[in-house]
Amino acid sequence: MMYRILVLNGPNLNMLGIREPGVYGSEGLRDIEDKLLKLGEQQGLAIECYQTNHEGYLIDKIHAAFGSIDGILINPGAWTHYSYALRDAFAAVNIPFVEVHMSNIHARESFRHTSVTAALAIGQIAGFGSYSYELGLMALVRYLESRK
Amino acid sequence: MMYRILVLNGPNLNMLGIREPGVYGSEGLRDIEDKLLKLGEQQGLAIECYQTNHEGYLIDKIHAAFGSIDGILINPGAWTHYSYALRDAFAAVNIPFVEVHMSNIHARESFRHTSVTAALAIGQIAGFGSYSYELGLMALVRYLESRK
Amino acid sequence: MMYRILVLNGPNLNMLGIREPGVYGSEGLRDIEDKLLKLGEQQGLAIECYQTNHEGYLIDKIHAAFGSIDGILINPGAWTHYSYALRDAFAAVNIPFVEVHMSNIHARESFRHTSVTAALAIGQIAGFGSYSYELGLMALVRYLESRK
Amino acid sequence: MMYRILVLNGPNLNMLGIREPGVYGSEGLRDIEDKLLKLGEQQGLAIECYQTNHEGYLIDKIHAAFGSIDGILINPGAWTHYSYALRDAFAAVNIPFVEVHMSNIHARESFRHTSVTAALAIGQIAGFGSYSYELGLMALVRYLESRK
Amino acid sequence: MMYRILVLNGPNLNMLGIREPGVYGSEGLRDIEDKLLKLGEQQGLAIECYQTNHEGYLIDKIHAAFGSIDGILINPGAWTHYSYALRDAFAAVNIPFVEVHMSNIHARESFRHTSVTAALAIGQIAGFGSYSYELGLMALVRYLESRK
Amino acid sequence: MMYRILVLNGPNLNMLGIREPGVYGSEGLRDIEDKLLKLGEQQGLAIECYQTNHEGYLIDKIHAAFGSIDGILINPGAWTHYSYALRDAFAAVNIPFVEVHMSNIHARESFRHTSVTAALAIGQIAGFGSYSYELGLMALVRYLESRK
Amino acid sequence: MMYRILVLNGPNLNMLGIREPGVYGSEGLRDIEDKLLKLGEQQGLAIECYQTNHEGYLIDKIHAAFGSIDGILINPGAWTHYSYALRDAFAAVNIPFVEVHMSNIHARESFRHTSVTAALAIGQIAGFGSYSYELGLMALVRYLESRK
Amino acid sequence: MMYRILVLNGPNLNMLGIREPGVYGSEGLRDIEDKLLKLGEQQGLAIECYQTNHEGYLIDKIHAAFGSIDGILINPGAWTHYSYALRDAFAAVNIPFVEVHMSNIHARESFRHTSVTAALAIGQIAGFGSYSYELGLMALVRYLESRK
Amino acid sequence: MMYRILVLNGPNLNMLGIREPGVYGSEGLRDIEDKLLKLGEQQGLAIECYQTNHEGYLIDKIHAAFGSIDGILINPGAWTHYSYALRDAFAAVNIPFVEVHMSNIHARESFRHTSVTAALAIGQIAGFGSYSYELGLMALVRYLESRK
Amino acid sequence: MMYRILVLNGPNLNMLGIREPGVYGSEGLRDIEDKLLKLGEQQGLAIECYQTNHEGYLIDKIHAAFGSIDGILINPGAWTHYSYALRDAFAAVNIPFVEVHMSNIHARESFRHTSVTAALAIGQIAGFGSYSYELGLMALVRYLESRK
Amino acid sequence: MMYRILVLNGPNLNMLGIREPGVYGSEGLRDIEDKLLKLGEQQGLAIECYQTNHEGYLIDKIHAAFGSIDGILINPGAWTHYSYALRDAFAAVNIPFVEVHMSNIHARESFRHTSVTAALAIGQIAGFGSYSYELGLMALVRYLESRK
Amino acid sequence: MMYRILVLNGPNLNMLGIREPGVYGSEGLRDIEDKLLKLGEQQGLAIECYQTNHEGYLIDKIHAAFGSIDGILINPGAWTHYSYALRDAFAAVNIPFVEVHMSNIHARESFRHTSVTAALAIGQIAGFGSYSYELGLMALVRYLESRK
Repeated sequence: MMYRILVLNGPNLNMLGIREPGVYGSEGLRDIEDKLLKLGEQQGLAIECYQTNHEGYLIDKIHAAFGSIDGILINPGAWTHYSYALRDAFAAVNIPFVEVHMSNIHARESFRHTSVTAALAIGQIAGFGSYSYELGLMALVRYLESRK
Repeated sequence: MMYRILVLNGPNLNMLGIREPGVYGSEGLRDIEDKLLKLGEQQGLAIECYQTNHEGYLIDKIHAAFGSIDGILINPGAWTHYSYALRDAFAAVNIPFVEVHMSNIHARESFRHTSVTAALAIGQIAGFGSYSYELGLMALVRYLESRK
Repeated sequence: MMYRILVLNGPNLNMLGIREPGVYGSEGLRDIEDKLLKLGEQQGLAIECYQTNHEGYLIDKIHAAFGSIDGILINPGAWTHYSYALRDAFAAVNIPFVEVHMSNIHARESFRHTSVTAALAIGQIAGFGSYSYELGLMALVRYLESRK
Repeated sequence: MMYRILVLNGPNLNMLGIREPGVYGSEGLRDIEDKLLKLGEQQGLAIECYQTNHEGYLIDKIHAAFGSIDGILINPGAWTHYSYALRDAFAAVNIPFVEVHMSNIHARESFRHTSVTAALAIGQIAGFGSYSYELGLMALVRYLESRK
Repeated sequence: MMYRILVLNGPNLNMLGIREPGVYGSEGLRDIEDKLLKLGEQQGLAIECYQTNHEGYLIDKIHAAFGSIDGILINPGAWTHYSYALRDAFAAVNIPFVEVHMSNIHARESFRHTSVTAALAIGQIAGFGSYSYELGLMALVRYLESRK
Repeated sequence: MMYRILVLNGPNLNMLGIREPGVYGSEGLRDIEDKLLKLGEQQGLAIECYQTNHEGYLIDKIHAAFGSIDGILINPGAWTHYSYALRDAFAAVNIPFVEVHMSNIHARESFRHTSVTAALAIGQIAGFGSYSYELGLMALVRYLESRK
Repeated sequence: MMYRILVLNGPNLNMLGIREPGVYGSEGLRDIEDKLLKLGEQQGLAIECYQTNHEGYLIDKIHAAFGSIDGILINPGAWTHYSYALRDAFAAVNIPFVEVHMSNIHARESFRHTSVTAALAIGQIAGFGSYSYELGLMALVRYLESRK
Repeated sequence: MMYRILVLNGPNLNMLGIREPGVYGSEGLRDIEDKLLKLGEQQGLAIECYQTNHEGYLIDKIHAAFGSIDGILINPGAWTHYSYALRDAFAAVNIPFVEVHMSNIHARESFRHTSVTAALAIGQIAGFGSYSYELGLMALVRYLESRK
Repeated sequence: MMYRILVLNGPNLNMLGIREPGVYGSEGLRDIEDKLLKLGEQQGLAIECYQTNHEGYLIDKIHAAFGSIDGILINPGAWTHYSYALRDAFAAVNIPFVEVHMSNIHARESFRHTSVTAALAIGQIAGFGSYSYELGLMALVRYLESRK
Repeated sequence: MMYRILVLNGPNLNMLGIREPGVYGSEGLRDIEDKLLKLGEQQGLAIECYQTNHEGYLIDKIHAAFGSIDGILINPGAWTHYSYALRDAFAAVNIPFVEVHMSNIHARESFRHTSVTAALAIGQIAGFGSYSYELGLMALVRYLESRK
Repeated sequence: MMYRILVLNGPNLNMLGIREPGVYGSEGLRDIEDKLLKLGEQQGLAIECYQTNHEGYLIDKIHAAFGSIDGILINPGAWTHYSYALRDAFAAVNIPFVEVHMSNIHARESFRHTSVTAALAIGQIAGFGSYSYELGLMALVRYLESRK
Repeated sequence: MMYRILVLNGPNLNMLGIREPGVYGSEGLRDIEDKLLKLGEQQGLAIECYQTNHEGYLIDKIHAAFGSIDGILINPGAWTHYSYALRDAFAAVNIPFVEVHMSNIHARESFRHTSVTAALAIGQIAGFGSYSYELGLMALVRYLESRK
């Protein structure tokens, strides 16, 4: 059976490769998405990628996933720290999701130590650059398989 | 005289009936809006309903109400707890509004105990499921009548 | 079937009409109770009203309601903010209740933003003057009907 | 003109002379009230004294003073630190009052550093043993005279 | 020599057996008091039992114990968490007392983790249902004996 | 050399002249933008103005400025106090910016005393009505010149 | 026997009569000092008055009082809220002092609710305008007499 | 049936009789253990006593008790206030335990008012010197009997 | 008409050019004052400059300005964060003032994020080096003109 | 080249499979270590596994790794939340490490939301049961390879 | 080479020998300074001593030390806890300094546990009476030698 | 008379010379101990040195010192910030001790600003590298001599 996976990226992640290279490296979001798509192909996953700087579009996307998506891989960017609306979107659709961060948020400004979404996630992965996404995808797939 | 009432719903409320049925019941937002429209018809109110997951569109809508709407009934959803922009929108148009919540926000996670918008409202009603809207509509009309 | 409703008012509410007229209006508590009794008559409700400035008598009253009252409508006044004994009284009898406030407590001193009783209530209504009681009564009856 | 003054004492103050003599001295409440009554006689004041360990009776007393008392001298005892109901009672009757304490509450346990009633008082006097009452009476009379 | 012991119970404890049976069991307060009286008889103790939902009556009772009671066993119920007046009553009479709770207050809501009275007690016992009272009585008697 | 300047306004600032006139005066946003454009013309600056109530569009606009804009003048409105996404947008493009406020945010509600964006700005100007923008423009140009 | 009393006033109190007349009235500091000197004369007190806006001079003055002054009456002005150096000065000389405030500091900004000096005082008097000084003088003399 | 009971003592309790005699009395830990063993003999309990200053050995001991011990009586000493590892050890083996303290921890330094282990215990007993252990043993046995 | 302007600098600002050059640049206070005086001359302003490391002298200076100065431009240095005496001095004379800082205080240590004086100012300008003073002067003059 | 990896487990993790099966599943620590050893074999890694309930032995082990180990995979158990000594051990040896947790610590008790060690780690992975270790191993190897 | 050392003492330290002898002993400041001068002579140090109760003079003194003093030994007295102006003075001159306290500030009132100056010092020494100064002098000289 | 001195070092201090050389320098713990032993020899002190990474062994060592050691010099490392068990060990044996730190803990992470042991120490010395130990030894000896 083929899992349908949605890969979501929140605000400013379209600027990867440009933004704070000392923190995030030079790889762009497209590179990351391509790698995930390729991994998906190899493992028989149907992966769709989406990035937006609009909280509303991200919520719409999560709603649309209801009934058609098996799992979500998300880097909520700065919304991690204040978007209770995003949290409620996950509660509304009840789709399992994994939260990933490229940087080690526990080693940055104190406002980044708190996540308002992680309590609803399967788990959280932070600090491994773009590899956080790959690990997150593996963790998500493993979780879906364990539920069969 | 006929009051012009705007009924606003914030993020994720379009998912009512689907979202956390244990908390909110199976009734959909359309059902609630229909009931309010019917009530409006009976009482000679001109009611318009609007829901959005985009903070910006909600603010635009409130601005547009300036000069053409007599009162607002709003369930701001999760924005209740952090959207100072929404709060400022109400301050900008100075239209009387009633804040409603379906669940008893005082009995849920602690972040839901605080409302950044309620201080500007006529009042707040929480905990009565979809009936919170009907009570809110009554309270709003009563307030408008008392000001005549 | 006729519901038996107890309407409770906490400290200082006997001074309504005298107390801080800028905040609460000139209507007295007797006026409010009369209106509720009349509403009760119209809807076939057996309503009893009680006010006290003594925390102990309010608790005694709630205990006495056990087994003989279907629902409670209460304005706990200032006890809202610190009387854990009142909270425990509701837990002890497990009678559904609605908490009402005449003023918008969310727009007043910060100590009034916290309710130690609301978490056990069906819901809370605040800000609509004496009309808060009428809305609260409707909400209570609706709740009792939904449980049949 | 003769001012009508109500002298109120809250919980445990009936135990003065017995209670924590290291903190409050050996003089009893009756001694203090007698001294105040004698002072009142000398200055043409109509003084009534009342002590209770029941929050409810104190509130009742304050309500009863409405329209018949010109000023209140009160030592709220431990209620100073949590009785918002007492605070609301003063707001309800709007009678000027002076808050006194025998011990220097600013030099004792930290919970005694906060007064929920003092913000509504004319002023507060603390630390001078039973003489705090005499000073408070003088301050109250002076205030009433200044308003003539 | 026979010790004179006062057993005090605060608000809502008269509802034991009814109140939150999942937390407190089905035994009533009368059952507990009977057991204590019987224990007292066996050990030559003069035990008096008293329960009230009125803070004021409890304070009056403690005052009346001055000079006639050797030790107090008390379950202050919810007053444990905010009644500084009760705390002051114990300071006023300086009678040794043991504080007991049926439930493990350290495992319940966070507001129950703080006791404003325990600092003045000999000690505190919590979590053993009605047996907390029996343990408390033993601890009190042992303390009184150690002072002889 | 001609600097390219982007003037950004956040939520509700389109309502200037209408919104809370007691706080902000009667001048509209268009008036302010016109004055800035005229100043820009006089000083050889290429100024573009943009206002939005959508956090997402503001972030998009800041991203688009990357490589084509020399400095940004921004009044983030209420987002000042919670939009970490906006903060990250500035970190992503690394364009120097000046933060301005018409009202003295340090003299208003306490939630307005904190800015999540100001730490990344060159500086902050608050309290001078529409003149805050003109001062901010001068400060920005001066900064750009100092870097040459 | 004649007591030697030092009357101290802290920063900005030289502006009395000018400063915030809505809060403090139109009486000047000189008027207050004259009244105290006259009272002192009547009661056989040797009173010296001193005001300064310099924390250092106030501390010097307190040190100089060591061995030559029996009691101090002080209005520390804004230093009340942060000058631990002033607190230490009182600890160093160990002269009994009474702290007075003209306004009711418990009813003003929250930073004025805390006094870093009051814990070392005999007591504190606040809220009675210039009469606070007269009450304070009486309290101080009474205290000195009680120690004889 | 014979219950198998483990009596555990944490850091510094081996110094009882030496350590802070003003607080704990002169009785040594060996004396306490001997009394408990004797009590155990009388009641048909198999009691084993163990004290350590090493968090690791205490955890090992608790693990070893899994499957062979019916109940634990523990005085965790200072670990009470910070050893989440100890808390997790109890969660791991799920053996019922009673937490005891010789001194009244609610009357000492504020860091001693919090217990990280008590929430998992049956209950907590504090303040009765070595008799706390005896009471704790009784409470534990009573609990085990109630579960039969 | 010619405005009389007082330019005040608080503690350590005489060390400008020496102090932390990485933060403040190499320009000295004299250079800044000269520039302001020249600007004043050009615009017909009577400017007086004053710097002190003594809180008392700054307060004296502000008092002396009463009745002879139209507006104050001040960099309170570190007193910004704790000198309530300075705040009261501004309240006493009620002269409009602008608060300036050379560094961006919102980007430095957290204790610098709070200003106890800014709430009384017209506004605050921070982060533009010595140019903050020039902007502040313009803002002050503009304000004075708007009041004519 | 073969990396030398140390796999460390903190307190109570030897009880896996027994401890709180609802939270952690029935797999034992030995099972997890075996899987990691097998993975290591496949990938040419030299893996050593170590578990202890003694903070001291864990610190000793980390010290011993200095100069002989390339990377550490650690589940610090409850020490995550308070062992600054463990944190310092990592700082002392400066060996890159990945922190893993089986449960989603962000969804459990609030004391588990804070990690005192994560700030020094490459990153943190939480919530995926025993698969967290496998993901952590991959992340660690990837990091080591990226540094070559 | 001869080091030039400035020994500074803050408010109330001139009262040593008089002030709180239970805390500080009977030795006067002059005695301490004499001992330091003698030590300086023996070690070839040029020591200057200065004490003031005026924050401004201390700051002036520190400024004057710029360029002529190699190291500062300071007991800031109560300013330790709030004088950010003093902190900035040290930042301005960048002269290495050692902070000393006679009493163990960590064992006194909680406001004394925080130092706003220590973060800029080489180090802090507290608790050894006048010997703290001698230790501080040794530490300062050692530091200066290590920088040669 | 010869003093018997115990020199204790807590976790990770065996790594000195290796650990964070930027913070602590390249000197090893053995070097420091040798210097202290030599100093002891010169001054007729019997010094014993001990280091451990095990909290339990440190506590055991302190207990063993009871009756045989006159004073303790300790660097508790990271336990400084959380080991209440260590604090209690000092309370148990009541041996005077001096707490030393090599780095200036007041200038590092905020969790290092708090010491749970310092309140029981004679005093604390921090910031002078290995010389902190020598200063601490001098302070300890001086203290012991002063008690003779």
